[in-house]
Amino acid sequence: MKRIAIFPGSFDPITKGHESVILRALPLFDKIVVAIGVNSEKHGFFPLEQRKLWLQEVFADHAKIEIVSYQGLTIDYCLKENIRFILRGLRTSADFEFERTIGQMNKSMHPDIETVFLLTTPEHTHINSSIVREIIRNGGDVFAFVPARLKLS
Amino acid sequence: MKRIAIFPGSFDPITKGHESVILRALPLFDKIVVAIGVNSEKHGFFPLEQRKLWLQEVFADHAKIEIVSYQGLTIDYCLKENIRFILRGLRTSADFEFERTIGQMNKSMHPDIETVFLLTTPEHTHINSSIVREIIRNGGDVFAFVPARLKLS
Amino acid sequence: MKRIAIFPGSFDPITKGHESVILRALPLFDKIVVAIGVNSEKHGFFPLEQRKLWLQEVFADHAKIEIVSYQGLTIDYCLKENIRFILRGLRTSADFEFERTIGQMNKSMHPDIETVFLLTTPEHTHINSSIVREIIRNGGDVFAFVPARLKLS
Amino acid sequence: MKRIAIFPGSFDPITKGHESVILRALPLFDKIVVAIGVNSEKHGFFPLEQRKLWLQEVFADHAKIEIVSYQGLTIDYCLKENIRFILRGLRTSADFEFERTIGQMNKSMHPDIETVFLLTTPEHTHINSSIVREIIRNGGDVFAFVPARLKLS
Amino acid sequence: MKRIAIFPGSFDPITKGHESVILRALPLFDKIVVAIGVNSEKHGFFPLEQRKLWLQEVFADHAKIEIVSYQGLTIDYCLKENIRFILRGLRTSADFEFERTIGQMNKSMHPDIETVFLLTTPEHTHINSSIVREIIRNGGDVFAFVPARLKLS
Amino acid sequence: MKRIAIFPGSFDPITKGHESVILRALPLFDKIVVAIGVNSEKHGFFPLEQRKLWLQEVFADHAKIEIVSYQGLTIDYCLKENIRFILRGLRTSADFEFERTIGQMNKSMHPDIETVFLLTTPEHTHINSSIVREIIRNGGDVFAFVPARLKLS
Repeated sequence: MKRIAIFPGSFDPITKGHESVILRALPLFDKIVVAIGVNSEKHGFFPLEQRKLWLQEVFADHAKIEIVSYQGLTIDYCLKENIRFILRGLRTSADFEFERTIGQMNKSMHPDIETVFLLTTPEHTHINSSIVREIIRNGGDVFAFVPARLKLS
Repeated sequence: MKRIAIFPGSFDPITKGHESVILRALPLFDKIVVAIGVNSEKHGFFPLEQRKLWLQEVFADHAKIEIVSYQGLTIDYCLKENIRFILRGLRTSADFEFERTIGQMNKSMHPDIETVFLLTTPEHTHINSSIVREIIRNGGDVFAFVPARLKLS
Repeated sequence: MKRIAIFPGSFDPITKGHESVILRALPLFDKIVVAIGVNSEKHGFFPLEQRKLWLQEVFADHAKIEIVSYQGLTIDYCLKENIRFILRGLRTSADFEFERTIGQMNKSMHPDIETVFLLTTPEHTHINSSIVREIIRNGGDVFAFVPARLKLS
Repeated sequence: MKRIAIFPGSFDPITKGHESVILRALPLFDKIVVAIGVNSEKHGFFPLEQRKLWLQEVFADHAKIEIVSYQGLTIDYCLKENIRFILRGLRTSADFEFERTIGQMNKSMHPDIETVFLLTTPEHTHINSSIVREIIRNGGDVFAFVPARLKLS
Repeated sequence: MKRIAIFPGSFDPITKGHESVILRALPLFDKIVVAIGVNSEKHGFFPLEQRKLWLQEVFADHAKIEIVSYQGLTIDYCLKENIRFILRGLRTSADFEFERTIGQMNKSMHPDIETVFLLTTPEHTHINSSIVREIIRNGGDVFAFVPARLKLS
Repeated sequence: MKRIAIFPGSFDPITKGHESVILRALPLFDKIVVAIGVNSEKHGFFPLEQRKLWLQEVFADHAKIEIVSYQGLTIDYCLKENIRFILRGLRTSADFEFERTIGQMNKSMHPDIETVFLLTTPEHTHINSSIVREIIRNGGDVFAFVPARLKLS
């Protein structure tokens, strides 16, 4: 059986932290689905199409990575698409406590789906999407925090 | 290339928490090496041979699991045995901070070796080897905390 | 003097975690007031009347439990109703830091009112009301997370 | 049925933090047993008899408080003495994670025994027995950290 | 070169915790700029002018303290005003994780600007601006949490 | 008045994390005393003289840095030497909780002495002296974790 993982997120925008976790997880899986969760009640800072384009550019050289968007619960998308692993990065202990709650609730709804965690690398541990947006909103330069292929200006 | 993981520990004794993480990680790897780290300066509560026997009994039905013991750094054992993944379970945020330090130091010494984390399941999150030993030392009953196959009396 | 405790919350909806803490605290108190805090600026996901009905059903067999709703500060309600203990459950260290701030501020305003904490049991530690709402909103099944008497469909 | 709580510790020495939690818990219980846990393998900094004398002096005015020492697991002492509540103070989130592990393991061994937590008051949150001992060992003055009735010189 | 620090915040309202950190940091710097960050998208609870007046009253006796307001990123304000140190208080580990993210992102954008932290004193560790606002909103008395010079009624 | 800080530690051995915090704090102080705390009951892994030599080499180019060793409480050394600031680095929230306890106890003994914290930089956040020693003990290479001037072989 193929080992397929989903890496869900809003990627608003994708950061170097996301990019690093996804690339480092490639040897572990046969395919990684990078999936933009769309919340009908909460609009993103960047339009969905823009975020998708960025993901496609960043991972253009990796045939094992697929870019999708989805609505509803991540766990329901996994069941529909026959995905058995959810991939997440861990930066801080606040992250950990949040992810543990989600991961354990998912597990108790669908015991066959397992959440797998990698650490962010030290030089990316402080990168946070909402602060990246705050910097962009104020005209600051975020090149240190987002993948080199993103053109934000 | 085969996906081989090591799950290092002192297993003094193995708990239901360890057992659960190892079994749940089986679909992710082609082989899991459950490895007792031997520290020449620190004796275990149970003799090494006893701990090894217990591991062999607990995982007797799983051909993909191998039981070993090793000395020295986990990362050096991985290099020697061509193991690319270190598997760890996460219970609490204290665990997480400790594992992050070890995992990031390992990664900066050998960037090709990746630490992969699973969550403990909720009903095992509170199980702690050193408290299990404390209970045994005082004649208490630990059947709720260790695998069913362990005979501790 | 009677030992009366208030267990304040939004109960939007009540979870198995709340239910377990309240029932386990019964031997400690002569009466527990389960109190829905009403915030005039923030509407609940479920209507107040629905939430109250659920609480009444869940605790119907317990004469020592009373269901109320209140506006304003919990501490002011305690003073008015002559309640000396605030009862809270603790799941995670994030919970703890939040509750400590509230508990210590309450204590410095009214030193006679004491906050008393019980732990959630391991199998309920991951249950979180806002994720339960998110699951309901997306049509998922939350029977594992809410008391058996709740009819959510 | 009487509500009896045990407050276990090494009290080596008792601090203002312990004293405050015990006194503030008095309205909640009919009796509080302040119990020095004796570990045959680990000697205290102060002799057991000295620690016991200090506890007796500190709580001399409180008929509802009893001073004892015990060996073995706290939970076994509770069963033998028919004590249903374990009382603990919480200072920090590190404390909380440690106490949660102990509390949940106790609960899974004996579901009838409940651990009850109070917060330390803000002005005592930083007081730590092992640092108090370190200060004493170096000839420093700890009057700010221990009950007024202790004569340490 | 003069050592100038900025203490940024919304001061909505200033608390005894803020006041204590700023006064205790005075011996460390030649000048401290207490700076109200103005967010064009988020209105404060108290009007900007009121918050500024309060700061001026609280620090009226300290010639080394200057009160300003600013828009945009703190780091950009520092560059413009030639400020090399950002001063922050730390209360809890949740605070710490948040401040570390901000501080390390600032540092990677402008390595010359250093964030310097002081601890809140124990008796102020539990004071939290958003709970202070919640108490005010409900007609409670916050004199224990805000500087003596504030007239809130 | 001159601003003098002490940076106390065991420096067994000094790491890149220590080095970075001390160098980055130089603009804040007129002098930094890097002080090896000597504990008569606990021997170091490296001899005191070796640790001192390493500190002298690492900071040889910085006239504002002085290397000393001391016995007893840090706070007593500060009083004797007229040092008003204690400098510490913060890596993790576990660090923070430990440092807060020490810092607040010091402050309540001697209110005039202030502890000042800098963050470690992201690339040094995972470096931990005791793991560095463990790697050395097992013959591993620690060049990534200690200052370039240290000759460990």
